[in-house]
This record gives sequence, structure tokens and C-alpha cells, in this order.
Amino acid sequence: MRVSTPDPESNGGWLSGEDLDYVRRRVPILYVEAIPVRLAPSGELEHIGLLLQANEDGVMTRAFVSGRVNYGESLRDTLNRHLEKDLGPMALPQLPACLTPVTVAEYSPIPGARLVDERQHAVSLVYVVPVSGECDPCENALEVSWLTPGEALDPDLLEELEGGRARILKTVIGQLSAWP
Amino acid sequence: MRVSTPDPESNGGWLSGEDLDYVRRRVPILYVEAIPVRLAPSGELEHIGLLLQANEDGVMTRAFVSGRVNYGESLRDTLNRHLEKDLGPMALPQLPACLTPVTVAEYSPIPGARLVDERQHAVSLVYVVPVSGECDPCENALEVSWLTPGEALDPDLLEELEGGRARILKTVIGQLSAWP
Amino acid sequence: MRVSTPDPESNGGWLSGEDLDYVRRRVPILYVEAIPVRLAPSGELEHIGLLLQANEDGVMTRAFVSGRVNYGESLRDTLNRHLEKDLGPMALPQLPACLTPVTVAEYSPIPGARLVDERQHAVSLVYVVPVSGECDPCENALEVSWLTPGEALDPDLLEELEGGRARILKTVIGQLSAWP
Amino acid sequence: MRVSTPDPESNGGWLSGEDLDYVRRRVPILYVEAIPVRLAPSGELEHIGLLLQANEDGVMTRAFVSGRVNYGESLRDTLNRHLEKDLGPMALPQLPACLTPVTVAEYSPIPGARLVDERQHAVSLVYVVPVSGECDPCENALEVSWLTPGEALDPDLLEELEGGRARILKTVIGQLSAWP
Repeated sequence: MRVSTPDPESNGGWLSGEDLDYVRRRVPILYVEAIPVRLAPSGELEHIGLLLQANEDGVMTRAFVSGRVNYGESLRDTLNRHLEKDLGPMALPQLPACLTPVTVAEYSPIPGARLVDERQHAVSLVYVVPVSGECDPCENALEVSWLTPGEALDPDLLEELEGGRARILKTVIGQLSAWP
Repeated sequence: MRVSTPDPESNGGWLSGEDLDYVRRRVPILYVEAIPVRLAPSGELEHIGLLLQANEDGVMTRAFVSGRVNYGESLRDTLNRHLEKDLGPMALPQLPACLTPVTVAEYSPIPGARLVDERQHAVSLVYVVPVSGECDPCENALEVSWLTPGEALDPDLLEELEGGRARILKTVIGQLSAWP
Repeated sequence: MRVSTPDPESNGGWLSGEDLDYVRRRVPILYVEAIPVRLAPSGELEHIGLLLQANEDGVMTRAFVSGRVNYGESLRDTLNRHLEKDLGPMALPQLPACLTPVTVAEYSPIPGARLVDERQHAVSLVYVVPVSGECDPCENALEVSWLTPGEALDPDLLEELEGGRARILKTVIGQLSAWP
Repeated sequence: MRVSTPDPESNGGWLSGEDLDYVRRRVPILYVEAIPVRLAPSGELEHIGLLLQANEDGVMTRAFVSGRVNYGESLRDTLNRHLEKDLGPMALPQLPACLTPVTVAEYSPIPGARLVDERQHAVSLVYVVPVSGECDPCENALEVSWLTPGEALDPDLLEELEGGRARILKTVIGQLSAWP
């Protein structure tokens, strides 16, 4: 029996691979996604942090901080856990006081959907998280790239965001009044 | 084998009772909750609709329109399905153009939690839905009571909202600038 | 003494042209902007309404429903007044239950600013307003064009939005999860 | 000629007392209000900061950080200026990345209105601002009191918030999912 799971450190949310496969075919899976940002002292958006990582086919892609909400885990703990896993322990993220997300993203396993996640039907709560410390990606990510809104909207870069997430990035840049 | 399910009409989300029990012990379950409102032509909140229904112990309680998001079902379809089930086919709800919820509610099965759902760990996206037609509750609800914000904040009534939902109601009344 | 004013029908907000000029050089002027939309029964964005009108130089431009908040006038009354003026009395707009705007727009009279209003420093609260009736522009507007999100994002059309409002339109399309 | 003004340090927004009186009778005046908060590392609300100050009649009252938006001043600069004036230079406020306010407050000079400002018709954009440094009120405020949500909702304390601002405080506590 295979017992790997994406979050082995978290006992409460522990699921064997078979369990997770089983659940994924029966209910939508809840995720959080966090877009790390560097803000000016005035609060203005300066840089957006995108993870650079290889996907399952070995292709380099851009990604947000992202992960599943475990059974029994609060949204705040989930955000904290994934921010630490993806940005390292010294990133000093400022979690939002209000848990209303910037946007809600619905991923479908069906090819051609607006947002696609081949593994599952997932619903993701998307947050913007100001980060003031040093980022040191721990797991899959090779690095965190810090991009101005103009750089992040470069068409080549937008294509490196998988599953239609370019739409989410554009939504967030709009919400932060940062269209160049 | 028991094959009942809360939403038998929805093939995509069909789960046997055993399946649902199994899933509920492994991941948080995604819900939507909708608070029906009557608005003045100016958009001002006039009345809040609360369902009056008997809970499993036969006690009369107040409830929001609420239900699980099925596998493969969009949030909009979920909202529509539960609004029709709980308010009837002539309610004419105006679904929100933007799916960012008014608030996100985290329910825990652990007694004493801020918001409690004895059956499961549930995360609920809460929406305010203006309704302009006639409401005729179809399933469990006995009636829809239309209350002014002042009436809805009556301490006796707030106690009839189970699971700590009085907090959600107060949040929504605040968000609609309707504190008396 | 010249006593014209943009809103002669509204006694409370009546300002002579000289008064308005005087005030505009001393404080930021508060505006509302409303972007009319046609929604599917599911709440999904189908069409965005843009006014087609000639600007002061006779050039055809696209515009939102927009106007100044008069002294003593509530935001809801302001929204209603300008929606009726720009869309006609049969538009049946559904004003928002919650007055938190989709975005706040800051216009500066200084050329080269992100958002420009040559007349003044203006701060505008931007709302999305579903419209279900017939639109019949009354005053300056020649017509209301109903555009899909894809059509509204056509670069030629975005250029017809003055003062940098293309950024606002993109923000709203993101907020409604409608990026094509 | 009296030339005092509430913000003498700010040249751009300089208005003589007469000018301000004149303007206040003609247009709504734009304000920002900031509610300082202390957050747990998880982002959860721990304490709300309320200013303790004497009003014009010498009565002790509770207040938010608050002030007028000057001509030519951005909302971010306004927030920064008033936070520094009311909390001192070492408060280390984290201004929001997104300028959409938590709520919009409409104050009327008419007694009996929902929110009252005797001086004027004012529209205020309300923000929640996490503060991590030391607060040292500079001008009118005697001190900043840090209160738990439960303490802040004490009826005696709510009465010390003038102009109906208890409603705003309750709205913010709801939005931060902090109803006790």
C-alpha cells in the first residue's frame, strides 16, 4: 500500500495516495493559493513573487504558493504551512486579517475548461500575501522570481502559468490597481 | 447498501451514504450558504429571509439556504440548485456577478468551536442573494420568514440559528450597512 | 452670473459653475461610476454596457455611467440618479446591496497620471450594476453598446475609454472572473 | 483673515478656515478612516486600537484614525499622514495592498442620521491597518487603547464612539470573523 501524501508532516490531514484518489473522484477538493507580494512602505505593489518549478513533464513553469486544506486544518494554518513550505521559514509573510479571498478559482479536470487541474475538481481561495523577509524555496520550487506588474504581464511569462492561472494573475493585478 | 444522498437529483454529485461518511472523515467539505434578502429599489436592505425548519431533534431552528458543492458542479450551479430547493422555483434570485463571498465560514465538528457542524469539517462560501419573486420552500423548510435587520438581531432569534451562525448573520448585516 | 450645473434637477446639489470651479481647486471631488452589465440567470457576466458619446472635442469615446455626488445626497441616490440619466427610466438597474465598491479610482488633473481627469482631482467609487430592462440613453450618450468581455477587451475599444479607464474595465472583468 | 487648517504641514491641501467652511457647504468631503489592529502571526485579530481623546465639549471619546483627503493627495499618502499623526512615527503600519475599503461610511450633518458628522456631509473610506510597532499618539489623542474584540464590543465603550461609529466597529469585527 502506497502511503505517500503531499503533506506528510501534517498528521491531521494525512491521507494515503489511495484515499486521496478515492476522495478526489467524489467531492471538490478545497485549496488555498497565495500570491506573495513586495509592497512599498505606502502599500503600493512593487513586486509579485512567482515560483519557478518543473512540472511533472519536466517543463519549467511558474506557480503560486498553493496547497490543499487538510481535514481539521484552519485556513490560516493551511496558508501558513504552504507559505513556509514554498517560501522558507524566513519569508515573514503577513497573513490577511480578513479571510475573504481576493477571488475564488474553480478548477475542472475537463480539458478546455476555463481553469484546469488534471487531477481533480478543485476550488481555491486566492489570497495576496505581503512578504517582508528572505525567501528560500524549500521543496519543489527552484526559486522565487520577483516581478514588477509589467514584467508579470509579459505574454511569454503568462504562458508559463499552468491551468489558466494567467487569468488569476490579471485579476489580482487589477484588484491591486496595478495595471501598467 | 444504503444509497440515500442529500441531492439525489444531481447525478454528477451522487454519493452513497457510506461514501459521504468516508469522505467526510478525510477532507473538509465545501459548502455554499446563501442569505436571501429583499432590497428596496435603491438597493437598501429591507428584509432578510431565514428558513424555519425542524432540526434532527425536532427543535425549530432558523437556517440559511445552504448545501454541499457536488463533484463537477460549479459554484453558480450549486447556488442555483440550493436556492431553488429551499425557496421554490418562483423565487427569482439574482445570483451575484462576482463569486467572491461576503465571508468564508469554517465549521468544525469539535464542540466548542466558533462555528460547529457536528457532521464534518466544512468550509462555506457565504453569499447575499437578492430575491424578487415568491418563495415557497420545497423540502425541509416550513417557511421563509422575512425579517428587518432589527428583528433578525433579536437575541431570541439569534439563538435559533444553529452552529454559531448568529456570527455570520451579524457579519452580513454589517457588510450591508444595516446595523439598526 | 453663470448658473449652469451638471445636475440642474437636483436642488440639494445645485452649484453655480463658479462655485464648482472654486471647489474643484480646493478638495478632491467624489464621484460614483457604474458599469452596467447583463447577467445570465446563473449570474455569469454576458455583456458589459459602455456608453458611446462625443467628448468636448467631438471625438467619439466610450464611457461608464458616471457622476458627481451632490451635497446631501446618498451614494444610493447618486447611483440611481446617474443610472436613470444615462440609461433612461426603463433600464431596471439592480443597485448593490453592499456599497463597498469593486474598486476605487483616483483621477488626477496632472497629465501622465495613471488615471486622468483634466477638470479636477476626483475619487470615484466604482460599482457593477446588473441591468435587466431596456436602455435608452437620455442625455449626452448616443447609445449603450453591449459587449462580451472579449469584445470589451479589444485594444481599439480600450483606447476609446478616456482617462485610463481601460484599467478599470480590466479590473472589473477580472473581478467577475470573465477573462476570456 | 483666519488661515488655520487641520493639516498645516500639508501645502497641497492647505485651506483657510473660511475656504473649508465654504467648501463644506457645497460638496461632500472625502475622508479616510483607519482602524489599527494587532494581528497574531497567523493573521488572526488580537487587538483593536482605539484613540482616547477629548471632543470639543471636553468629553472623553473613542475614535478611529481619521482625516480628510487633501487636494492632490493620494489615498495612500492620506492614510500614511493620518496614521503617523495619530499613532506616531514608530507605529509601523502595514498599509493595504488593495485600496478597496472594508466599508464606506456616509456621514450626514442632520441630527438623527445613521452616521452623523455635525460639521459636514462626509464620505469616508474605512480601512483596517495592521500595526506592528510602538504607538505614541502625537496630537489630540491621549492614548491608544488596545482592546480585544470582546472588550471593544462592551456597550459602554461602544457609546464612547461618536457619530454612530459603533456600527462601523461592529462591521469591521464581523469582516475579520471576530465576533466573540
